[in-house]
Amino acid sequence: MLIDPIYPKSFASDNHAGVHPDVLDAMTAANHGDAPAYGSDRWTTAFECQIKEAFGSEAEGFAVLNGTGANIVGLSLMLGRYDAVICPESAHIATHETGASERLLGVKLITVPTEDGKLRPHHITSRLGALGTTYEPQPRVVSVSQVTELGTCYSPGELAALAQTAHDSGMRLHLDGARLANAAAYLDCDLRTLTTDAGVDVFSFGGTKNGALAAEAVVVLDPSLAHAVPFLRQQSLQLASKMRFVSAQLSALLTDELWRRNAAHANAMTARLVAGLEGLPGVSLVFPAQGNAAFVVLPKNATAALQSRYLFHYWDEDAGLVRWMTAFDTTPEQVDDFLDDIRKAVGA
Amino acid sequence: MLIDPIYPKSFASDNHAGVHPDVLDAMTAANHGDAPAYGSDRWTTAFECQIKEAFGSEAEGFAVLNGTGANIVGLSLMLGRYDAVICPESAHIATHETGASERLLGVKLITVPTEDGKLRPHHITSRLGALGTTYEPQPRVVSVSQVTELGTCYSPGELAALAQTAHDSGMRLHLDGARLANAAAYLDCDLRTLTTDAGVDVFSFGGTKNGALAAEAVVVLDPSLAHAVPFLRQQSLQLASKMRFVSAQLSALLTDELWRRNAAHANAMTARLVAGLEGLPGVSLVFPAQGNAAFVVLPKNATAALQSRYLFHYWDEDAGLVRWMTAFDTTPEQVDDFLDDIRKAVGA
Amino acid sequence: MLIDPIYPKSFASDNHAGVHPDVLDAMTAANHGDAPAYGSDRWTTAFECQIKEAFGSEAEGFAVLNGTGANIVGLSLMLGRYDAVICPESAHIATHETGASERLLGVKLITVPTEDGKLRPHHITSRLGALGTTYEPQPRVVSVSQVTELGTCYSPGELAALAQTAHDSGMRLHLDGARLANAAAYLDCDLRTLTTDAGVDVFSFGGTKNGALAAEAVVVLDPSLAHAVPFLRQQSLQLASKMRFVSAQLSALLTDELWRRNAAHANAMTARLVAGLEGLPGVSLVFPAQGNAAFVVLPKNATAALQSRYLFHYWDEDAGLVRWMTAFDTTPEQVDDFLDDIRKAVGA
Amino acid sequence: MLIDPIYPKSFASDNHAGVHPDVLDAMTAANHGDAPAYGSDRWTTAFECQIKEAFGSEAEGFAVLNGTGANIVGLSLMLGRYDAVICPESAHIATHETGASERLLGVKLITVPTEDGKLRPHHITSRLGALGTTYEPQPRVVSVSQVTELGTCYSPGELAALAQTAHDSGMRLHLDGARLANAAAYLDCDLRTLTTDAGVDVFSFGGTKNGALAAEAVVVLDPSLAHAVPFLRQQSLQLASKMRFVSAQLSALLTDELWRRNAAHANAMTARLVAGLEGLPGVSLVFPAQGNAAFVVLPKNATAALQSRYLFHYWDEDAGLVRWMTAFDTTPEQVDDFLDDIRKAVGA
Repeated sequence: MLIDPIYPKSFASDNHAGVHPDVLDAMTAANHGDAPAYGSDRWTTAFECQIKEAFGSEAEGFAVLNGTGANIVGLSLMLGRYDAVICPESAHIATHETGASERLLGVKLITVPTEDGKLRPHHITSRLGALGTTYEPQPRVVSVSQVTELGTCYSPGELAALAQTAHDSGMRLHLDGARLANAAAYLDCDLRTLTTDAGVDVFSFGGTKNGALAAEAVVVLDPSLAHAVPFLRQQSLQLASKMRFVSAQLSALLTDELWRRNAAHANAMTARLVAGLEGLPGVSLVFPAQGNAAFVVLPKNATAALQSRYLFHYWDEDAGLVRWMTAFDTTPEQVDDFLDDIRKAVGA
Repeated sequence: MLIDPIYPKSFASDNHAGVHPDVLDAMTAANHGDAPAYGSDRWTTAFECQIKEAFGSEAEGFAVLNGTGANIVGLSLMLGRYDAVICPESAHIATHETGASERLLGVKLITVPTEDGKLRPHHITSRLGALGTTYEPQPRVVSVSQVTELGTCYSPGELAALAQTAHDSGMRLHLDGARLANAAAYLDCDLRTLTTDAGVDVFSFGGTKNGALAAEAVVVLDPSLAHAVPFLRQQSLQLASKMRFVSAQLSALLTDELWRRNAAHANAMTARLVAGLEGLPGVSLVFPAQGNAAFVVLPKNATAALQSRYLFHYWDEDAGLVRWMTAFDTTPEQVDDFLDDIRKAVGA
Repeated sequence: MLIDPIYPKSFASDNHAGVHPDVLDAMTAANHGDAPAYGSDRWTTAFECQIKEAFGSEAEGFAVLNGTGANIVGLSLMLGRYDAVICPESAHIATHETGASERLLGVKLITVPTEDGKLRPHHITSRLGALGTTYEPQPRVVSVSQVTELGTCYSPGELAALAQTAHDSGMRLHLDGARLANAAAYLDCDLRTLTTDAGVDVFSFGGTKNGALAAEAVVVLDPSLAHAVPFLRQQSLQLASKMRFVSAQLSALLTDELWRRNAAHANAMTARLVAGLEGLPGVSLVFPAQGNAAFVVLPKNATAALQSRYLFHYWDEDAGLVRWMTAFDTTPEQVDDFLDDIRKAVGA
Repeated sequence: MLIDPIYPKSFASDNHAGVHPDVLDAMTAANHGDAPAYGSDRWTTAFECQIKEAFGSEAEGFAVLNGTGANIVGLSLMLGRYDAVICPESAHIATHETGASERLLGVKLITVPTEDGKLRPHHITSRLGALGTTYEPQPRVVSVSQVTELGTCYSPGELAALAQTAHDSGMRLHLDGARLANAAAYLDCDLRTLTTDAGVDVFSFGGTKNGALAAEAVVVLDPSLAHAVPFLRQQSLQLASKMRFVSAQLSALLTDELWRRNAAHANAMTARLVAGLEGLPGVSLVFPAQGNAAFVVLPKNATAALQSRYLFHYWDEDAGLVRWMTAFDTTPEQVDDFLDDIRKAVGA
């Protein structure tokens, strides 16, 4: 029934890419005979060991099904009935999850305007007046995204400062790491540097946007929190019965740092794209492109012309701002063709 | 890092099986170039059309990630803030979902003891005293599983009677169809006969237990309810970004009735197993085996001996009751070997 | 606009009674000048001291607005996101609170059938199979009512056994004390004997059914839990702004054991009623009347005749079972008149 | 045990006042014999009739226990599982209710910065981009407070414009009327002009801040919504068993417009206070004082001096901003004394 794919090249999202061959191979290899369900299988054991190798012996990894699920499971470990989360106004949990935090967790998100999607310590300290005030939800968690939703990265030092600020006031630091791999590739550092070593308490490690099919990990670095995950993962609809196939995906990404190779390539393609935009009339980069996304303002007629041949969306239509993303499988030729078309569209 | 699989043959669950080759092939075939995310792709369109073919032109199908997710999304369409669900005491939603209905939906489950996992109309009518009583949650949904959690099937007439009873009192009928394929195979009828034609309002159509990797469908037959699904699916953590790979799984099962072939085979293997138990000393079948599960009482030392060579669990250890399940890939030889070992274990 | 009351004498509920004059006097006396809101007033301080006098120096009392509110606030202190409560099938939280536990707390109530409304230790231990099972909500709280909803009382020893059983498995004991005063009066013991000394962790102390206007106390005996009450009380809609008038009610009841005098009188009126039923044809007491409620089966035509002159309701219409309650202000003459009419109605 | 009140005069809140004698008299008068519970009494019937007289024949009034409860019950009538509320950043529901909207309703509050606590139509229309976007909660309700939390009033025309804007986009208008009486007194209009006639769908009518002890009304003007209130009121912990005493309070306020007399007096006292501030050095009024609250910046040493003799609080300590409120029982002499002390404190 299905015909050949006819979708144009997409620069809309790293979710528009397919699955890396190594990931698909790992899934296929796991399809052999019976295996216990719900994680009592050795693909899952292997994944759990790889998490400890990557993040330290106290790290515990739990495979889940999607990014919003990873955020909700992770946050649910740290939040009680009258608690609040401090996060940037641009946070995925605040803007793109259909209010899952409010409805499934019952928490208030204290959203902070930022210039570039990055929270700073003073953003936290200036919101702590609520602590101890019975008519306000209590800030218990600071949540940041790495890479941010605006394509910027926190340095290890910036993350450590956020962790310190949170901990100093009895809060925990949560990191939405849907694109954590891209950050580690951009910063040329270990995953551990951005998480365990920085003082993060709970984070997600994204697979889907980086070459997996549908696999994310919730990683718990505070050992007092891990016992609750199996209950909350199942209740939160994030437990796969045939878990081996989810674990195999994550395991493939963690093997020989496939995550880094995929992310580094995606980042390089965005860098190539951004470099090619230099000096084009009416085209300007809005945020530093520190991952695999470029936020670009360009003339609306140019956008219209390009959208007839490529998939991508407005981030802010009034401002003429679009988001362009590259993925593990974007080729230099595709970027160069796109740049050619951009140049034509803006009359350069 | 992974070594060859060493797990023994499992009769514990259809979740212990792997993925049917046609399903894996369909996923692999979908891994080609870019495609829009979140369901705006043509694999999803194809799946949606197949749902209409199978269940009627008003049916709308939505791919989700797991069975509990399918139940919660489906039920959430029909339940308000002070509502209740009438279901059998053995219902999966009441026993195996870590209280997701209570916590994520906030509803009360009115659980009814049954003899064989099947709800009857009088079970419903006898619980309707709450209607209009402000201090009681209001019954709005009747939820039944087909095949039931005890391996029994509702006939089309029994389902229609439940639907009629529910509708007569302003309630809707929900069907947990994690093993709906097995029921249609057992009853040798269309899927439509057990759903659309019987008066079901919302149901799940299970893929994972029947040869998929991780894919279920929520199918909405009441057109007034469908508009809410995209919002609730995303909020309920059941939206896959690379949706094409979930839709491709369901599409493969719906192509040329692969679902029926898989389910019929699994059922036949259970029937073969049950036939072989006939007359064995101390071995008795507890419920009619009308799908791919057999509930069997056998001597505890026999159970212990068998568990050293096969994977399966007690359903009720005090009663010496075990559940044995077969899957799409269980072979006659595996069943026969198992029967040989059962005979030895019980000294026959 | 209001005309003189014309309601007949009610034996339907202790909620049909008015307010004890001492309580109303205390409220009137508190209506003097300005006072800080939300509990920072000295009527509240006095109430808090009286709670410590009655229940021990570690007891902390919090005034709330109604009985369901007291239960929800109390339970919320002890329950996380995947927890369950074990309680009798007849528990008020399970039957008369419009599913508030499920919706506001998100918890599953594991309801246990009992003969007389009283939970026994084996009811608890037989429900502990769920502990550690990730697909089941975890039992964290045992909740019982004293006096029970069926008019029976736990002895101090029975409560201590329940507390011990709960604590042995890492659970806490909650007591719905809407009629705790009636129990203490019936058992001729201190309030402390039934709570602090028995090992209860959190309980409610009911005022409204015992002569107050609208006032209940949540009392926390486990000091580790008390800090959360101010947040949860406000969030749970149970914080009165002009708190002095709620505290004054509770304070009046706690002064010179007015609670005991009211409850003992109500109990005595039920005892007088029950004594008068002795030997009446077709009239039988169903549960021991150990508080201010009598559950009585009588001929339906007798019930109909009596309901034309008195307010009371069927508890179970099919069984011909009614509940009769007396209150602090029921007079012996009213009981005797009622008995006269009962005798006529049953043809004695 | 209680000694004479020793609290200084409070200008902190209208909640610091006591109960109006007519209200207390009505409660005392209701304390006569038995009456059915939960609202089946004639004091409640009388209150319900008065609501219809005040707000029109389709208005249905429901007595509840406090202001946050009134807001939650009212909002819960209009909000589904993936909905949002648009409200000013200063809204009580967003700032002073310990996150009850998020936790009990599961909704997202879309908070809009305003200059004076008043929402304008363009604030609504600029937030409607979310409509139809599945990854965002759907705006269903606009909620405004009258009088606002900053002491300002909407004119009838402003309210009608908000209602029109909301209705044009399929939303409803909710009004937090904790101080609705003060607005009607300030604007010298009927209550109906500000609610029914303006197109409000559901609102609260506050009693507690205006001379009641603890009584608010939820008033439903959209007849399709009223049937749910009894269920939601009870589940939301807002149902009084001895309802007659809550209804009697509201009835007293609605009799001969006591609500207006109380509110007008409170407003007049604030106007007297504000008039006396004119020209004082370092003292400035921040918002127009259109009810019974004045928001005033004054020197911090003056604040400190005044707080040693009067009860009141900072609204924004960094800005030196305090809120002063008057109540139904504030006397001109108390205002004049306060003004004398203010003049001394600022060295005038």
